[in-house]
Amino acid sequence: MSNKITPRSEDFPRWYQDVVQHGALAENSPVRGCMVIKPHGYAIWENLQAARDKRFKDTGHENAYFPLFIPKSFLDKEAEHVKGFAPELAIVTHGGGKELEEPLVIRPTSETIIGHTYAKWVQSHRDLPLLINQWANVVRWEMRPRLFLRTTEFLWQEGHTVHANEAEAEAETLQMLDIYEEIARDWLAIPVRKGIKSRIETFPGALRTYTIEGLMQDGKALQMGTSHNLGQNFAKAFGIQFQDVDGKRKFAWTTSWGVSTRLIGAVVMAHGDDKGLVLPPRIAPIQVVLVPIFRKEEEKIAVLKEANRIVDSLKARGIRAKLDDREHLKPGPKFFGWEEKGVPIRLEFGPRDLAAKKVVAVRRDTGEKQPQNIDGLGELLEALLDEIQAGLLARAEARLEAMTNEASTMEEFEALLSDPGGFVLAHWDGTDATEQAIKERTKATIRVLGDQCDGICVFSGAPATQRAYFARAY
Amino acid sequence: MSNKITPRSEDFPRWYQDVVQHGALAENSPVRGCMVIKPHGYAIWENLQAARDKRFKDTGHENAYFPLFIPKSFLDKEAEHVKGFAPELAIVTHGGGKELEEPLVIRPTSETIIGHTYAKWVQSHRDLPLLINQWANVVRWEMRPRLFLRTTEFLWQEGHTVHANEAEAEAETLQMLDIYEEIARDWLAIPVRKGIKSRIETFPGALRTYTIEGLMQDGKALQMGTSHNLGQNFAKAFGIQFQDVDGKRKFAWTTSWGVSTRLIGAVVMAHGDDKGLVLPPRIAPIQVVLVPIFRKEEEKIAVLKEANRIVDSLKARGIRAKLDDREHLKPGPKFFGWEEKGVPIRLEFGPRDLAAKKVVAVRRDTGEKQPQNIDGLGELLEALLDEIQAGLLARAEARLEAMTNEASTMEEFEALLSDPGGFVLAHWDGTDATEQAIKERTKATIRVLGDQCDGICVFSGAPATQRAYFARAY
Repeated sequence: MSNKITPRSEDFPRWYQDVVQHGALAENSPVRGCMVIKPHGYAIWENLQAARDKRFKDTGHENAYFPLFIPKSFLDKEAEHVKGFAPELAIVTHGGGKELEEPLVIRPTSETIIGHTYAKWVQSHRDLPLLINQWANVVRWEMRPRLFLRTTEFLWQEGHTVHANEAEAEAETLQMLDIYEEIARDWLAIPVRKGIKSRIETFPGALRTYTIEGLMQDGKALQMGTSHNLGQNFAKAFGIQFQDVDGKRKFAWTTSWGVSTRLIGAVVMAHGDDKGLVLPPRIAPIQVVLVPIFRKEEEKIAVLKEANRIVDSLKARGIRAKLDDREHLKPGPKFFGWEEKGVPIRLEFGPRDLAAKKVVAVRRDTGEKQPQNIDGLGELLEALLDEIQAGLLARAEARLEAMTNEASTMEEFEALLSDPGGFVLAHWDGTDATEQAIKERTKATIRVLGDQCDGICVFSGAPATQRAYFARAY
Repeated sequence: MSNKITPRSEDFPRWYQDVVQHGALAENSPVRGCMVIKPHGYAIWENLQAARDKRFKDTGHENAYFPLFIPKSFLDKEAEHVKGFAPELAIVTHGGGKELEEPLVIRPTSETIIGHTYAKWVQSHRDLPLLINQWANVVRWEMRPRLFLRTTEFLWQEGHTVHANEAEAEAETLQMLDIYEEIARDWLAIPVRKGIKSRIETFPGALRTYTIEGLMQDGKALQMGTSHNLGQNFAKAFGIQFQDVDGKRKFAWTTSWGVSTRLIGAVVMAHGDDKGLVLPPRIAPIQVVLVPIFRKEEEKIAVLKEANRIVDSLKARGIRAKLDDREHLKPGPKFFGWEEKGVPIRLEFGPRDLAAKKVVAVRRDTGEKQPQNIDGLGELLEALLDEIQAGLLARAEARLEAMTNEASTMEEFEALLSDPGGFVLAHWDGTDATEQAIKERTKATIRVLGDQCDGICVFSGAPATQRAYFARAY
């Protein structure tokens, strides 16, 4: 492991890699493109999983599990879908010592195998809506892998629902998008731009794709979650039909929506600093770490006894607290280590603190140090954790605001893209050609469509009826 | 779907299939050997997952995630391991549109890829013990698949730990075996025979394999979980070494342990009856279902209002309760449906019950019907759920007792195997040859070793120093 974290200003991608490594989140595996998610990284995923799973269940969804393998022929049934995913597929050709009659694809996403299954499950309007989510691993062959952001195998959840009509499918699509926005804001402390994708960026096979887009500290956008109204495309490809109340047999409407381990990369790049990770308290596996300080043996005994009592009392309140009583490390290296791991609050506790019935609380986000009374500490730390959570969000909101700017000419557009970076809001004539041309010239893509309003396209000068948020993106 | 559940006495395997189908637990997918786990089945898995995850964390384990893909060459590094798993492998030969330089194996279990990773993570005695668990899907090509019991892809958890010496590795192996026994007994209501496997049945690459073996209603045994002391085999194959307190570099000791979605099959076969599933309350996704009964519209309004209140009050106590207010079904078909799904308690509630401030509670396990006061209902149902849980365990314990018998001759052995079936305890001379010969003659294998005690081998007549539990098994 490299000994120092590269400063953000020097080399942002290198900084990212260093933070992931020093934060013990993940590492590359011997299989190119696949990562090992280490305990600290996986614990963040578990917290996020619990938050989402609860919201999915609150809104009437159940979990189920569909096969890892998909017959190759299933993908071919939806023309756009196979075109979009064919270049990224991993193919199983041999099983149980024999060559397979039909090669199997490892799921890059599960619309096809689930569509096939739903065609059997859905018969009547009484079977609708069908609201199911799956927690799973998926595989999309990745040529330029980056830990969490682009990996050949990643973990995600994928929701797949079936509805009787377009309005209900659209409502579901938007509801799940709202839940994703809520999770990003309330748990990850990342505000997002939310809305619809352009045709080029639409999910292969979808009618409409909605997205939430976060802004990273280097001014690049990161797609953090998508929700698709699949229209009747998959219903027609797989025969998902139902007898409606009017007695007629109709094709259903389906949706799908997912977010992945990529969210962990978003947290790193939205909040981290040159000392390492900065974790929002709500997703931090350890929220408060107590580092005991002592020289003499009798100090050690007294300090550790009270330290244990403090940590136990915090745990009893539901705070994820830890006592770092490792014997072979001095306090200094412990401080650095927990800073690199992004623990929101560090408590320093030595003989003088013990005598004064105080601890020194150090905030990871601001570095601020404050002595606090042990009496009433739990309540105080709860408030401080809330304050840190809110502070991270406020800082990210200010950045999003400052780094969203309007351009009416390509000169302005390009100037804004390099300084301050972030999102450039501009009129767009709605054509693929313009979107492509802007991408070639600036490397910026339409991350999400803006409002409907008349104007002149920033690139072509043609009349435009809407604006779009452009950005360079991960 | 077949309309009736085949009685157990007529055709047990067919009964099993029918119960899984009518209970809406799982179904076959278009990919041979792979199953779709339906919401009701997956919800049981989630309950079991939560129970285990808690116990793993209580005992100091953390979760992590390792890649789905393993380079074929990794398996070759442990000679016994590759011999054991080679016939069951699924192989990926193409990725991203190209043929791979080295084929990738889809993990059948993860000792090899994790061993490779641990060799980097473990350097010093201070890194030990390393206690990690993974929740994952694995693939073992299955020629004769059966839902839950043998599927090409299945879900499981696999723990992988590293220790400084044999004593600690053995203690971990046995601790996890005890936790598996506890989960089987306290959650699934299945008592098990617990102990060590014979050499033939040992995990490929392990020093010793411990197992818990449940007994199904047809008298066959089911291996429900295994815990392996891997000795230094994988440490040597992958170079997991550490500097010990004495300054010397030593090979570590490793363990692995896992249980899978097979547990759901165990529940079906341990407790189900000719009406379908019977679920132990602790793992039942729905513990209490209320079916409202009414004829006239004004009855409906009054009954539903109070029914909602009752169900809400049960939920508030933490009981997983559901109101079945489906409009297109009469009470009769609802009763059947919930019986097939194994819901432990059904509440029937109509206008006369409303007037008398009572409900009729029907136990799924015994069929017993009892009017109960609405006042104090929550407390009463909690007690009843505990009683059902305990009753299922007691019934299974009695069966295990009745179906474990001793044989001192092969005549007795074979007679007991056909009637009453179950476990036959007999002296065994400890040789592979005898074990194989008994298997060929009777189809029974050594499920788990019994006590050490001198005697005469039931098959060879040679002196024997221990006994073994033999059974036909899934």
